[in-house]
Amino acid sequence: MSTWEENVRKVTPYTPGEQPNRPQMIKLNTNENPYPPAPGVAKVLRHPDEDALRRYPDPAASVLVNALAENYHVKPEQVFVGVGSDDVLAMAFMTFFNSEKPILFPDISYSFYPVWAEEFRIPHTRVALDENFCIRKEDYYGENGGIVFPNPNAPTALAMGLDDVEDIIRHNPDVVVIVDEAYVDFGAESALKLVEKYENLLVVQTFSKSRSLAGMRIGFAIGSPKLIKYLNDVKYSFNSYTLNQTSLACGVEAVKDQAYFNETRTRIMKTREHAKEVLGEMGFSFPDSKANFLFITHPDYPAKELFQALRQKDIYVRYFDQPRINNYLRVTIGTDEQMEAFYEFLRDYMR
Amino acid sequence: MSTWEENVRKVTPYTPGEQPNRPQMIKLNTNENPYPPAPGVAKVLRHPDEDALRRYPDPAASVLVNALAENYHVKPEQVFVGVGSDDVLAMAFMTFFNSEKPILFPDISYSFYPVWAEEFRIPHTRVALDENFCIRKEDYYGENGGIVFPNPNAPTALAMGLDDVEDIIRHNPDVVVIVDEAYVDFGAESALKLVEKYENLLVVQTFSKSRSLAGMRIGFAIGSPKLIKYLNDVKYSFNSYTLNQTSLACGVEAVKDQAYFNETRTRIMKTREHAKEVLGEMGFSFPDSKANFLFITHPDYPAKELFQALRQKDIYVRYFDQPRINNYLRVTIGTDEQMEAFYEFLRDYMR
Repeated sequence: MSTWEENVRKVTPYTPGEQPNRPQMIKLNTNENPYPPAPGVAKVLRHPDEDALRRYPDPAASVLVNALAENYHVKPEQVFVGVGSDDVLAMAFMTFFNSEKPILFPDISYSFYPVWAEEFRIPHTRVALDENFCIRKEDYYGENGGIVFPNPNAPTALAMGLDDVEDIIRHNPDVVVIVDEAYVDFGAESALKLVEKYENLLVVQTFSKSRSLAGMRIGFAIGSPKLIKYLNDVKYSFNSYTLNQTSLACGVEAVKDQAYFNETRTRIMKTREHAKEVLGEMGFSFPDSKANFLFITHPDYPAKELFQALRQKDIYVRYFDQPRINNYLRVTIGTDEQMEAFYEFLRDYMR
Repeated sequence: MSTWEENVRKVTPYTPGEQPNRPQMIKLNTNENPYPPAPGVAKVLRHPDEDALRRYPDPAASVLVNALAENYHVKPEQVFVGVGSDDVLAMAFMTFFNSEKPILFPDISYSFYPVWAEEFRIPHTRVALDENFCIRKEDYYGENGGIVFPNPNAPTALAMGLDDVEDIIRHNPDVVVIVDEAYVDFGAESALKLVEKYENLLVVQTFSKSRSLAGMRIGFAIGSPKLIKYLNDVKYSFNSYTLNQTSLACGVEAVKDQAYFNETRTRIMKTREHAKEVLGEMGFSFPDSKANFLFITHPDYPAKELFQALRQKDIYVRYFDQPRINNYLRVTIGTDEQMEAFYEFLRDYMR
């Protein structure tokens, strides 16, 4: 090893879900939305503002911040935007988690949390979910340096009620509590209604799932003006201009079209509820999903083998080779047609 | 102050150049390119791949990485891309500057360097430029934790010869040396030809200046495969998917059109050389620019007053209220028409 390598920050990087791109594949592995974004998005792209391309974007991303503030009935100074919710979460970890005490998050959860903790050298403790994959709120009462959990949780798809979420926040006035709501628009209750009450609560959401814009990388956080100010200070010390001109334009179009948003998320929830019936009849069990995916297991068919068999047929789902969940598959809710093909495969496989 | 605020990372954020947007303004304050990007860029935007919008982009950004590798005659594993060169530099600071010894950079230079150093708690020393605003290579021979400097430097616009750049690299085999070449395409010599020779050299460039894509946020770094691997590991631990689908598509188009790239940068250099004559005749002096801006001062007209008088007429340039340079203005090279309007203003002002 050369001497210069001694000063390198060594990390174990997060492994994103694979992004195969085969014409006939059925891609149910990264929780993308099977429907295109709101029609206004493609429309605004088709008329690019050429002069804007050569100019730096507004560093404050005001058009998007204002659209989000209006949509969620908060003040613009309560909104932070970033390059996907991963960027928002990374900035939030860097901004708020600087205690000597460990931050807390569930042991089975978004696998990026321990990666950020390691990258930023944040002491952390993984808190075990209970035997039903539920977050036990009492486990978050003790001393800590901050708290982060997804609601609904991933990959379990289970949502906590808002009372339980608030209970955790109420017990932790001295640290920042981040509720990561990537999947909240598919049936869970958002903690957004608590941001006026708790100055230390940060709610993070994304355009990648319910707004069909994973390809444009847009995430946001809503919290108290004080919290957002701190977050922006750190962001401006990292990269002044993050959201590019097309992301800003597309994001605004996606937020504006509330009717399309409701139509597509309702359609996905309907497909999901039907999937619960079909898969249940096949003998699968799963936590009761409030997200755009199901976390399924079968007593007779090992998940890993099923995962590989699906791949052979160009059907991609996600498998996590980790303790407690290595007999589960995370299956994104696709279109009805994609789900039928998936059921069809399963029927064949089990025959 | 609430208790949770004690764990907040407190920083003094970088202040980006203002982004006024007035119909008749002449914007010479943020070193943007006055010409639109290559025609292929707007063309590719006009035909958005709607299916790509809802899907995560390729986390490896392979299409763009491959286009850059081909263009610069390096291997794809020697190329790193990010959300503007600020993102690339932030990641590089985080990855490579983890020594107890201070990193070194010029005292008059890109004002983001001390901001990143503070944000990531990196010890740092600002090394004074000489009386002619030149980097003295001998000042970079001592013990240090890493080195970063722009070439050409900003806001001075002065370029170092490649021999001097190599001298600094040769004297520092035990740390990473970053050469920040945001402005290199306007007449300086790139250190890219040294990356095969020095495993610890990272060359950073951007699409924001010579490729007219400030609005799309694309930057890149080229170095040894080992260096790029470390950088990617840290990046993947921060945010897996950074460049969005439109940035990838636009970036490829901009790299491909070498003819347009050469035409526009040549035009800017020509306008710059003419500006040197005109401004020289008016009594301005300036370091001999190899960038797309001039750093000008006048013995009779205080820069700050001139800056404000220009603003009143909707002509925006950049003024830095800092020791040694507070009687200078940084003026971006615009179109010939914009420059004529600028000269016209000056003639009036001096009358």
